[in-house]
Amino acid sequence: MTNTSIITIGDELLIGQVIDTNSAWMAQELNKAGMRVKRRVAVGDVWDEIWQALDEESLHADIILITGGLGPTADDITKPLLSKYFGGSITINEGALQNVKYLFETVFKRPLSERNLKQAEVPDSCTVIQNKRGTAPGMWFEKNGKIYVSMPGVPHEMKGMMETDVISLLVQKFSFPHIAHRTLVTFGIGESMLADHIQTFEEALPKHIKLAYLPNYGMVRLRLSTSGMNKTETENEIDHYFETLQSLVKEFMISNRDENMEKILGNLLVQKKQTFCTAESCTGGYIAHIVTSLSGASAFYQGSFVTYSYEAKEDLLQVSHDTLLIKGAVSEDVVIEMARGALKNIKTDYTIAVSGIMGPGGGMPDKPVGTVWVAVGNNAKITTQKFHFRFDRQRNIQMTAMNALNLLRKFILEEA
Amino acid sequence: MTNTSIITIGDELLIGQVIDTNSAWMAQELNKAGMRVKRRVAVGDVWDEIWQALDEESLHADIILITGGLGPTADDITKPLLSKYFGGSITINEGALQNVKYLFETVFKRPLSERNLKQAEVPDSCTVIQNKRGTAPGMWFEKNGKIYVSMPGVPHEMKGMMETDVISLLVQKFSFPHIAHRTLVTFGIGESMLADHIQTFEEALPKHIKLAYLPNYGMVRLRLSTSGMNKTETENEIDHYFETLQSLVKEFMISNRDENMEKILGNLLVQKKQTFCTAESCTGGYIAHIVTSLSGASAFYQGSFVTYSYEAKEDLLQVSHDTLLIKGAVSEDVVIEMARGALKNIKTDYTIAVSGIMGPGGGMPDKPVGTVWVAVGNNAKITTQKFHFRFDRQRNIQMTAMNALNLLRKFILEEA
Repeated sequence: MTNTSIITIGDELLIGQVIDTNSAWMAQELNKAGMRVKRRVAVGDVWDEIWQALDEESLHADIILITGGLGPTADDITKPLLSKYFGGSITINEGALQNVKYLFETVFKRPLSERNLKQAEVPDSCTVIQNKRGTAPGMWFEKNGKIYVSMPGVPHEMKGMMETDVISLLVQKFSFPHIAHRTLVTFGIGESMLADHIQTFEEALPKHIKLAYLPNYGMVRLRLSTSGMNKTETENEIDHYFETLQSLVKEFMISNRDENMEKILGNLLVQKKQTFCTAESCTGGYIAHIVTSLSGASAFYQGSFVTYSYEAKEDLLQVSHDTLLIKGAVSEDVVIEMARGALKNIKTDYTIAVSGIMGPGGGMPDKPVGTVWVAVGNNAKITTQKFHFRFDRQRNIQMTAMNALNLLRKFILEEA
Repeated sequence: MTNTSIITIGDELLIGQVIDTNSAWMAQELNKAGMRVKRRVAVGDVWDEIWQALDEESLHADIILITGGLGPTADDITKPLLSKYFGGSITINEGALQNVKYLFETVFKRPLSERNLKQAEVPDSCTVIQNKRGTAPGMWFEKNGKIYVSMPGVPHEMKGMMETDVISLLVQKFSFPHIAHRTLVTFGIGESMLADHIQTFEEALPKHIKLAYLPNYGMVRLRLSTSGMNKTETENEIDHYFETLQSLVKEFMISNRDENMEKILGNLLVQKKQTFCTAESCTGGYIAHIVTSLSGASAFYQGSFVTYSYEAKEDLLQVSHDTLLIKGAVSEDVVIEMARGALKNIKTDYTIAVSGIMGPGGGMPDKPVGTVWVAVGNNAKITTQKFHFRFDRQRNIQMTAMNALNLLRKFILEEA
């Protein structure tokens, strides 16, 4: 089996100033193309440590993908290092030079400095992969039967190069087995209970089929994976087990594809040619944000009233001042009034209203941090539910959003 | 120097189903306490590969922190592996057992299964670190002078253990040097131009002081780092260089602390005891979300009109139907009307209105994907700016948010 290792370079990764989103994206794309990622390693902008990582990952993998450390500034040492590691001397690459000139003159419309021009220099031991989205070219090296590809750390630059060149070049070089995954999504059941529920199925799975539990904000995704050289056989075999799995978890399953809650709700609404809106207090626009992160959200989403203050709840949603004072902003009455206000002020079929205390401050003896009221409904009916989440602000916001979207999903299904 | 290595375990990390946010958080906390993270390695739920990672990281580092693979399901093999690796037999830990019982009976209010009880089992070769936020206990091992700590992969469980136990135990064991960082934030100048601007300063820096450039959505953060055994000397030395750096980049600097744009704007408004609101089309609530992710945002933020559809713009912000038809939703006239509507409908001092085409679809010959209009202002004055961003939807949303917040920041400063 062909193994891939991803090396990410940059001090910012090791002091936690930046979250590495590149590796996850790369792993997804490689996986789709049949490549197994065996390891991911992050090292700092330190000569010996990068060198050592190259040595070690060469022992682990056949393909070594490297990102980061290619910027124009002095802390970026990857290019001279690669030139030493693979031999050869540094020369100007004509294609990269044209690209740098084009970007500065036509796209950025900024003067081109000596430092920018140096971005077009590469070791002559590599094949250049042009970077259409930035100034640092990619570099493809081969040594002792292993392949090394160095790419910039800027996510959209790396993605552009992977999509247009790197993956197809790798697929030409190797004959990868076919990798098959099937993922379904459950909601409202814990990992342990789910495992008990499907224990017999899991124990009877053949060795070459792997089952993984991926818990995430109230959801648990179940993923079956396998690989084989014959695509049809591999797909048929995994489909067989996936069907059994689906029937076993039917009552908890919210989708038999790997898609998130907002997508699941969106699909349901698109099918019914209906729309919804949100009235958000404690989630502060997070529900609107994740929904509108879906391209095409305008087909089923109208917008949100992010009413963070008392005044905003009164001005935008006509929540009564008395209700706010007597019941408090985090109360069943307020989310019902918010939902009614939202439905009145915007042309839509359904609404979600949320109000809660996300922490770390704001907790009260009768309403501790993590208390949330959610209302969902339409002009005919509104239903509510109270939740208690625990721990940090970010997690509480996300848990609220997931549960609120799920509540509307159930409301719509029950209505049908 | 004491080196730390972080091993994260889980197939989901290697097929890209999950983004590793744990490592960045851990690195930050370790760094604050004086520990250098030398490497981060991710491996799958594969016996030999975890074993090999433990062997290898023991050669690289003195402290090996491990997360993931401790769940109650069959794909989680880390605990039996650690038991083999460090020796000893598996026994019930009384504290962990009490914790599991407490969580199920009092917090989750769910029946306790055999599988959950097994979570309280640990190798007797470890010291247990109790997990107050979940069922999987942490395990502290020592072998050949190296320290290994295994923690769950669930972020808030790992964070709880690091904060209450792990870091203080490590600090007791070792005498770490003092690590000092200073970070400032610039906006609106590229990495290369910035580097040219401070080239003389950078070349004259002593070897033990490192300068890093961290570009991110229109901003470039500049970070000076050093370490030393004497805290006062180390702090004084880095302060000296940081002052010079600040004066050199004064015209581009938006903060001399490591804080994000929304925090910088928030601080400015808190100082002036003023508030703002947003009227968001293309950013779909993202600006509201990042602003309200700050605890205490209610002091300076009123809320947002997320008007994703034409109807919402008309209903919520009284944007005229004619303007939308004649000029189009992405136009200077519409963002001005959105800004005016927002100021009229909510009690606030300032507003930001944005409308644009985020892609991948929706582009037109005269308004390609990435075209964005932003208006900022108050009841006395509104100013606008047109932007052209490039590439993917997510990045366009983030670039729009950063530039819109910066535009309001400048508006407020110029007004003063």
